[in-house]
Amino acid sequence: MRFDEELKTLKDQIKFNKAFKVEQHKNIVVAGMGGSGISGKIFSELYTKEPVFVVDDYKIPDFVDDKTEFFAVSYSGNTEETLIAAEEAKKRGSHVHAITSGGALSKSGYDTIIIPGGLQPRSAIGYLLMPLINTFIPQSKGDRDEAYHVLDEMDMNNGEMKNLAMKIYEKNLIPVIYGSSPFRNIAYRWKTQFNENSKIIAYSNYFSELNHNDTMPLKDTYRKDEFIFMVFSSSDSRISRRIEITGKITGTEFRMIDPIGNSNFVRMLYLVHYGDYVTYHLANMRNVEPQDVSLIEELKRKLSD
Amino acid sequence: MRFDEELKTLKDQIKFNKAFKVEQHKNIVVAGMGGSGISGKIFSELYTKEPVFVVDDYKIPDFVDDKTEFFAVSYSGNTEETLIAAEEAKKRGSHVHAITSGGALSKSGYDTIIIPGGLQPRSAIGYLLMPLINTFIPQSKGDRDEAYHVLDEMDMNNGEMKNLAMKIYEKNLIPVIYGSSPFRNIAYRWKTQFNENSKIIAYSNYFSELNHNDTMPLKDTYRKDEFIFMVFSSSDSRISRRIEITGKITGTEFRMIDPIGNSNFVRMLYLVHYGDYVTYHLANMRNVEPQDVSLIEELKRKLSD
Repeated sequence: MRFDEELKTLKDQIKFNKAFKVEQHKNIVVAGMGGSGISGKIFSELYTKEPVFVVDDYKIPDFVDDKTEFFAVSYSGNTEETLIAAEEAKKRGSHVHAITSGGALSKSGYDTIIIPGGLQPRSAIGYLLMPLINTFIPQSKGDRDEAYHVLDEMDMNNGEMKNLAMKIYEKNLIPVIYGSSPFRNIAYRWKTQFNENSKIIAYSNYFSELNHNDTMPLKDTYRKDEFIFMVFSSSDSRISRRIEITGKITGTEFRMIDPIGNSNFVRMLYLVHYGDYVTYHLANMRNVEPQDVSLIEELKRKLSD
Repeated sequence: MRFDEELKTLKDQIKFNKAFKVEQHKNIVVAGMGGSGISGKIFSELYTKEPVFVVDDYKIPDFVDDKTEFFAVSYSGNTEETLIAAEEAKKRGSHVHAITSGGALSKSGYDTIIIPGGLQPRSAIGYLLMPLINTFIPQSKGDRDEAYHVLDEMDMNNGEMKNLAMKIYEKNLIPVIYGSSPFRNIAYRWKTQFNENSKIIAYSNYFSELNHNDTMPLKDTYRKDEFIFMVFSSSDSRISRRIEITGKITGTEFRMIDPIGNSNFVRMLYLVHYGDYVTYHLANMRNVEPQDVSLIEELKRKLSD
C-alpha cells in the first residue's frame, strides 16, 4: 500500500469497535514505544479520571502490581522494550492486555485484541488507540460520525497541509511544534512524523511550561537554521493569551493550527491527521520515501545480533 | 549573591531535613513549573513505589480527589499555574502541601514547608527537592555525606565542565542532551539550564524512545547548525548497547557524561550539578548574565496586565 493510501485508512480505523474487559484496579499503565506508544501518550491526556501511566522503556514502575491494568501496545508485536515490560507486569500479577497485529506479543497469552496488520505502525494510530478509547471513554455515534467526516474531508482536500509542507521545503526550515493540554503529545507526534516520514529533525514542546525556559533564547541567540513555529491553538483563554504574548515579545511568528471538531476526540484526530499530511507531502517534495525507516530497522537488527 | 556562589550552596541545601506528614492516600501529585517544577519531575523518577503525577499546567487531572497527596512547588510562591492548580486540588478535598520560600503560596493555609529564599529558583533545586525526598525516600547519612563530598569536589574543581562549555562556545554548537531512566528529566534540566543560564537553544530526549524516531534524521538530513551530543551513560546494559550502536550507525559522536556516586540520589545530584556548571561557564564565555531571565519576567508582567 502506498503511504497516502495508508493515511486514507485512518477514517475507517476509528470504526474499530473492540473493547477490553477490565477488572477492579488501582491504576492503568500503557506500555509502548514510538509509533505504537504514541497511542498511550495521547490516551493519557484524553482520559484523566484515573491515573494513567505511560511506559516507554524496558522498566516498569515499582508500583505496578496485581491492582494494575496493564496495556502492552506494539503494532508489530515484536518491540523489545514492550515485550520485556509486559512480561515483568505479568510476573507482578497485573492484568495484562495487548493491542497488536501479531508477532510475539500475540502469542504471549495476554488478553489480546488483534488489529489489522499491513500498515506502518505510525499509520495505524486509529487501530492502536480505539481499543483504549472504547474501553475507557467510548465515543458517541455522533462524535464518531463527525470524526469520519472530518478525516474524509482532509483526505480529499489537504492542500493547506501541502502548502505548509512547501513552505518548509523551500527554505529547509526546521519544524518546531508547540502544543498544549490535552494535545501536548500530538505536538510530539508531529515531531516524530517529521523524523520518520520526512527524515528531518524537528522539535516539540508545550505551553505553558515552555514559557519558563524555552522562551528565553527565542529572541536573541545564535542559530543558523531557520525555524518554523507551528502552534496548536487552544480553547483555554489563559493559554491563548500566553501564545499571543510569547509571539509578540520574542518577535516570533507562530503559524497557528486550529483544530476542527466538537469534541476532544475529533480535534485530536484532526490534529494527528494534519501532521500526517504535512509530513507526507514534505517527504514527497524532498524525494524521500515516507515509509522507509531502514536506519531504525538496522538498529533493531544490530541490537538483536 | 553571584551565580557561582548560588551554585556552591547546593551541597548545603541537601542538608535541609524537613519532611511532610502525609495521610493515607491513593496517589501523589506534584505541581510546579520551570525551575521549581523540575523537582517534581526528578522526584517522579526516583520514587516509583507509588504513582507520582507531575502537573506543569493550570489544569489538574480529573482523578485528583480527597485521596490525593498534592504538593505545590513554587520557589517564589507566586507562580500563576501552580497557585491555580493547588486551589483546584484544595476544592477537590486533596491534602495540599506547599514547598516555597514565600509569596502567595505561603499564605494559602496549606501544609507548608518554607525553604530559604534569595536564590534563582533553578539554583534552589536542593531545597525544592529535599522535602519530597525526605518524606518518601529518606536518604541515609552515608548517602548524604557522599553527595556533599561529590558536590563539594565539583565546586572546587569544575575544569572538565568549563572545557565542555568552551567546546560549545568556540563553535557555537547547539547542545543536544540524551538521558535515560532514572535520569531522563535531568537531560531536560540541562536543556532548560542552557536556555536560562546560557541563553541558547538546546534539546533533550531519552533512550530508548528516541531510537524509535529521533534517530532517523541523525544520519542524513539538512541542518546548518552543528550539534554537540551529550549523553548520560547508563548502568543498564541494554541502554548502553543502544547508545553505542546509535552512535555507530548514525556516525554521531556522543560525549559521554558518567555519573559519579553509589546511589541514584548521589548520581542525580552529580548530573544536575554538572549541567549547572557547564551552562554557567558558557554564560560567562558568552558574556551573558546567567541570572538574567528578563524575557520570562516581561512575559509574566504582560500576562498579569
